[in-house]
Amino acid sequence: MDGGAQTKGRGGTRTVDVMSAIRAKVAGRALSAGDRLPSIRSLAATMGVSPSTVVEAYDRLAAEGLVRARRGSGFYVSPTVTPPLALTQAEPRRDRAVDPFWVSRQSLDTDAGVPKPGCGWLPPECMPDAALRRATRALARSDASVLTNYGSTSGSLALRRLLLTRLAEDEIEASINQLMLTGSGTQATDLICRLLLRPGDAVLVDDPCYFNFRALLRAHQARIVSVPYTPSGPDVVSFEQILAAERPRLYITNSALHNPTGATLSLPTAHRLLTLAAAHDLTIIEDDIFSDFEPERSPRLAALDGLNRVIRIGSFSKTLSASVRCGYIAARADWVEHLVDLQVATSFGGPSPVATEIIAKVLVGGSYRKHMDELRQKLTRARRDVARKLGALGIEPWLMPRGGFFLWCRLADGQDATAVARAALEEDVVLAPGNVFSVSQTAQNFLRFNVAHMNDLRMWDVLRRALKAQAG
Amino acid sequence: MDGGAQTKGRGGTRTVDVMSAIRAKVAGRALSAGDRLPSIRSLAATMGVSPSTVVEAYDRLAAEGLVRARRGSGFYVSPTVTPPLALTQAEPRRDRAVDPFWVSRQSLDTDAGVPKPGCGWLPPECMPDAALRRATRALARSDASVLTNYGSTSGSLALRRLLLTRLAEDEIEASINQLMLTGSGTQATDLICRLLLRPGDAVLVDDPCYFNFRALLRAHQARIVSVPYTPSGPDVVSFEQILAAERPRLYITNSALHNPTGATLSLPTAHRLLTLAAAHDLTIIEDDIFSDFEPERSPRLAALDGLNRVIRIGSFSKTLSASVRCGYIAARADWVEHLVDLQVATSFGGPSPVATEIIAKVLVGGSYRKHMDELRQKLTRARRDVARKLGALGIEPWLMPRGGFFLWCRLADGQDATAVARAALEEDVVLAPGNVFSVSQTAQNFLRFNVAHMNDLRMWDVLRRALKAQAG
Repeated sequence: MDGGAQTKGRGGTRTVDVMSAIRAKVAGRALSAGDRLPSIRSLAATMGVSPSTVVEAYDRLAAEGLVRARRGSGFYVSPTVTPPLALTQAEPRRDRAVDPFWVSRQSLDTDAGVPKPGCGWLPPECMPDAALRRATRALARSDASVLTNYGSTSGSLALRRLLLTRLAEDEIEASINQLMLTGSGTQATDLICRLLLRPGDAVLVDDPCYFNFRALLRAHQARIVSVPYTPSGPDVVSFEQILAAERPRLYITNSALHNPTGATLSLPTAHRLLTLAAAHDLTIIEDDIFSDFEPERSPRLAALDGLNRVIRIGSFSKTLSASVRCGYIAARADWVEHLVDLQVATSFGGPSPVATEIIAKVLVGGSYRKHMDELRQKLTRARRDVARKLGALGIEPWLMPRGGFFLWCRLADGQDATAVARAALEEDVVLAPGNVFSVSQTAQNFLRFNVAHMNDLRMWDVLRRALKAQAG
Repeated sequence: MDGGAQTKGRGGTRTVDVMSAIRAKVAGRALSAGDRLPSIRSLAATMGVSPSTVVEAYDRLAAEGLVRARRGSGFYVSPTVTPPLALTQAEPRRDRAVDPFWVSRQSLDTDAGVPKPGCGWLPPECMPDAALRRATRALARSDASVLTNYGSTSGSLALRRLLLTRLAEDEIEASINQLMLTGSGTQATDLICRLLLRPGDAVLVDDPCYFNFRALLRAHQARIVSVPYTPSGPDVVSFEQILAAERPRLYITNSALHNPTGATLSLPTAHRLLTLAAAHDLTIIEDDIFSDFEPERSPRLAALDGLNRVIRIGSFSKTLSASVRCGYIAARADWVEHLVDLQVATSFGGPSPVATEIIAKVLVGGSYRKHMDELRQKLTRARRDVARKLGALGIEPWLMPRGGFFLWCRLADGQDATAVARAALEEDVVLAPGNVFSVSQTAQNFLRFNVAHMNDLRMWDVLRRALKAQAG
């Protein structure tokens, strides 16, 4: 199965020679678009290399797009040479409306080098790099089935058992059949929406809330209603009125280190929410993705409720890796059974065993806990420093969060965050304007900052200019 | 970030000593459920090890579930010790109805050791093991951003450029903005259904067809209609009648090496289908996941149509790895733009960069093409040998496929495939009974066999007994 690579190992330079020879023929028009390349045997003979060396060279040229294979009839010069795409592809789309997709599309599709104070994740230097590389090397030595087979429909048993112990640390007692792994935290929420929602159902979110909740609910054609968020959680008076008036099927929230505000749910509010949820038969999705950033545990709806009408979801994308995709759902066992069927139907099987293997290996070692301890301290300093710098620009945090990397900030009166974000994007800086988080569109002079992405001096200059352009 | 691991590197045995000491205390009831473990410092002093060694040991015991950390207040013995779950979890559910989920749930959740002649993928020994391990080792050395960041919303540019050259080999000319990567081939189909379908829309599938199409369409609350499949494609007369009568929005099919029959679409039928699709404004999803198993290229709807009303999807799960999840969609650029938004909303970002990095590395080397050449020959022999053995049991292939690993077989008259599959499952052999593939439920005496999973002698005994039980 491996001859090509052995050839490469033994004679990589010979492969490169053959590639150069063909490139030269094309450059010199000795071979033009559509022409058939010399046969493997003949070129091998001419250049005095093995046929497999020529195959390797032709395959790599095909990978580059210069030539194409036609099964059973050899290789041909490509009719059109693919243009270089890296730049155009890395460019975000500046023209699109500032909708709930705006920040994600801009943040995800912008070059790694571009400052992203608006993005929702941490830069590589904040992730457990050494542990990830160790886990990946170990993966390369694992059983063939781990590298080649679908996983079980609920995902790696080892990782689920690890998660059970971590849930227990948050005082959430769950059995293994109440826990399933998903392709990501977003997919976890999506599966639950598939199970519980019908088009037109009302769904309650916080105002402000994580913008992608809005994007996801649009995809489900849900009727989105929102409740004002306070420093101790959603406003309980409005919450009760909305439950009575709108009869939402679902409420989606973050209890600890709420996105975007960084606020924390208080115990009285948590208790009140659960009482109202019971009275109105409301199901709650508690997205606990920022849990590990807390200095100490705060109230959890899932813990108080005992996974009865509260569904706990999470992922590892904020603390371990956003590249190794995996999320989870902890819920009533009968719901999990249905959700597993839905995941089979829509993704076939659980998350990639390659992904769950890497995550489990990183979590088992003591280095992950040590990494998080250091990261929490690092972010505490960054929140303080960035808040001070923003203050100098007349930008004030709505509150100072206990943990995490977000600062939800109010601009000086009269400044429009969307206009500031557009101006900054013109200079390749991606900001997160308040209204992408606000169903009621009442956050026009708020911005969400990610303190871990704000070391870049040019970014601060761009921000100053963008604000000044507004003020003037 | 890495102290714990260094400790492990220097003194793994000391860590194990500490773990054993704690286990002994728990076993001997010196520490019971809920008790606080000795403080890090005190135990480090007592045992003459470094505090980080104790932390490492406590963390590993926490991973095992024996103890639990409470942030800020140390470690405690778990109130309940998690029971061993491996067996119960590996057990498939025997009681559930034989629905479209039946084969997938049984195949995915059954132990690796259990013979799966009914499953839809290849065993590890048929996958490019060495190339996958090489790619994984290379991944461990790649940029930190590859290991930690979300990918771009359309997925790895390098892999998309590779795919463009492979599509060109099938005479499908596409530009980079017509191609997006997804979490899997199933997710590709799911995203398209989200974009094009509303609950109640009619969707046309082949009869028989891949059972998960039915599961997926149920999740979308589509009205599923089916067209009889012939050895040269769907029956064109019925196809036209159904288009006129049911006005399906979408038709989902495999053109080359159709699942489950292994049949191949003929050029005249392909042309007729596209003419009828144009006349009735039908969109077609061509799932080309078995493309690389063809001995030589056969007609493609996407190639004839030029990605106008045909959407080409595929993945690498059958030829490269089902663990490294990644699929793709090639379609009209304006549809791809909407599909990317939908993928952001429902999965956040494209597929895992870790996955696309591994796949791109395997595809570039010449070893993949060599691997496929050898695999095609191996499967040709396996199809012939298995067909002969089945013939001896009175089981006849509906046709002998040009490639791939499926044999769609008719049982002797009067034998019920579902009953045979249930009997075989009682002896831990997973079969694929015909009716899970049949919307009209007219395949009750067909079974789909996977020739790559039929070397197990016990499996043949189980099959004989299951057939005899039926005959008698």
